[in-house]
Amino acid sequence: MQILEGRLFFETAAREIKEITREVAAWVEKGGVGKGVLTLFLPHTSASLLIQENVSPQVKEDLLSFLCRLVPEEERLYRHNEEGADDMPAHLKSALTQVQLAIPVSSGRMRLGTWQGIFLLEHRAQPHRRVLDLTLIGE
Amino acid sequence: MQILEGRLFFETAAREIKEITREVAAWVEKGGVGKGVLTLFLPHTSASLLIQENVSPQVKEDLLSFLCRLVPEEERLYRHNEEGADDMPAHLKSALTQVQLAIPVSSGRMRLGTWQGIFLLEHRAQPHRRVLDLTLIGE
Amino acid sequence: MQILEGRLFFETAAREIKEITREVAAWVEKGGVGKGVLTLFLPHTSASLLIQENVSPQVKEDLLSFLCRLVPEEERLYRHNEEGADDMPAHLKSALTQVQLAIPVSSGRMRLGTWQGIFLLEHRAQPHRRVLDLTLIGE
Repeated sequence: MQILEGRLFFETAAREIKEITREVAAWVEKGGVGKGVLTLFLPHTSASLLIQENVSPQVKEDLLSFLCRLVPEEERLYRHNEEGADDMPAHLKSALTQVQLAIPVSSGRMRLGTWQGIFLLEHRAQPHRRVLDLTLIGE
Repeated sequence: MQILEGRLFFETAAREIKEITREVAAWVEKGGVGKGVLTLFLPHTSASLLIQENVSPQVKEDLLSFLCRLVPEEERLYRHNEEGADDMPAHLKSALTQVQLAIPVSSGRMRLGTWQGIFLLEHRAQPHRRVLDLTLIGE
Repeated sequence: MQILEGRLFFETAAREIKEITREVAAWVEKGGVGKGVLTLFLPHTSASLLIQENVSPQVKEDLLSFLCRLVPEEERLYRHNEEGADDMPAHLKSALTQVQLAIPVSSGRMRLGTWQGIFLLEHRAQPHRRVLDLTLIGE
């Protein structure tokens, strides 16, 4: 049994839903751990992680517009406004999705479903450099 | 320390909230691991997992109608429509709940609360055969 | 490799968003595990866990009012009413956030981001005594 730790960096565009499956898969496969559990953790409060269908680009557009309807950027709704009208909605979108995910690893690879991809959701209206911490416990 | 891997299959009805606590508990207890962490993972994008109160059947009905109000099946709202009017809402309902759960195991059993059950949520309007991957790391 | 198990108790006020970062961090640091993954689990169905920005107190107020808009306490919307008008909305708010979190541990500490705190969300309209189960797998 062993523990591997890693960190990946991603440059996001404004309000981007960025697929990161390939980068995470490469990290796992390089690690050489046959089976175990991978924990992904995003040390941010206005970006989040999501496992979702990764085939149709329209799914990403629909997800983005749904989140904007669900958490509207109307300043009168929020008291925390000093960092911009997109800031508090970004915190709320993060709260409704995830900053952490646990994914099983088998035969040296993530056991994702055929249509599943891992996405990094940038909820701010500006590009950011985001950090992803990876921990793999396995053997 | 050891890692147990398993897979369970569930037949769902249309828009079903199906309790799966008993099947998961049986798998854990058969494994003979005293303490550790169980990771449940659903390799699907239009079904999800949820830990919720498992006593009143009305809670399931209310949860279902709440999710349908929150993510309405109105075709004009979504661009991704080719797989049916229920498909994109199903992805969004999955995104707002979970496809993965981490549950502590102690004295050979899941440490669920008295009123907690594990549910598999079928968000599609047709029955499906769903896969649940289980990974238990413990000793 | 080892597994540490623990339990913490928190007294919540009505509809409180209570920061618990310090108590969890103290438990982790006392454990003396250098690296691994911490699993937090709340054995309740009307309270939840959330990682969120912990600097501005207005973020907590905005989160609370957002959740109340998203899941209104209107009796006509729910069939499960016998435990009070706040009960079913509390279940739904729990379903949309988390009862479990996985957090990486490195150099003996949780690897939280600079602005991240861990919060216990009390969704009921009365104070409660809440239990938090902690499991740390690491070395």
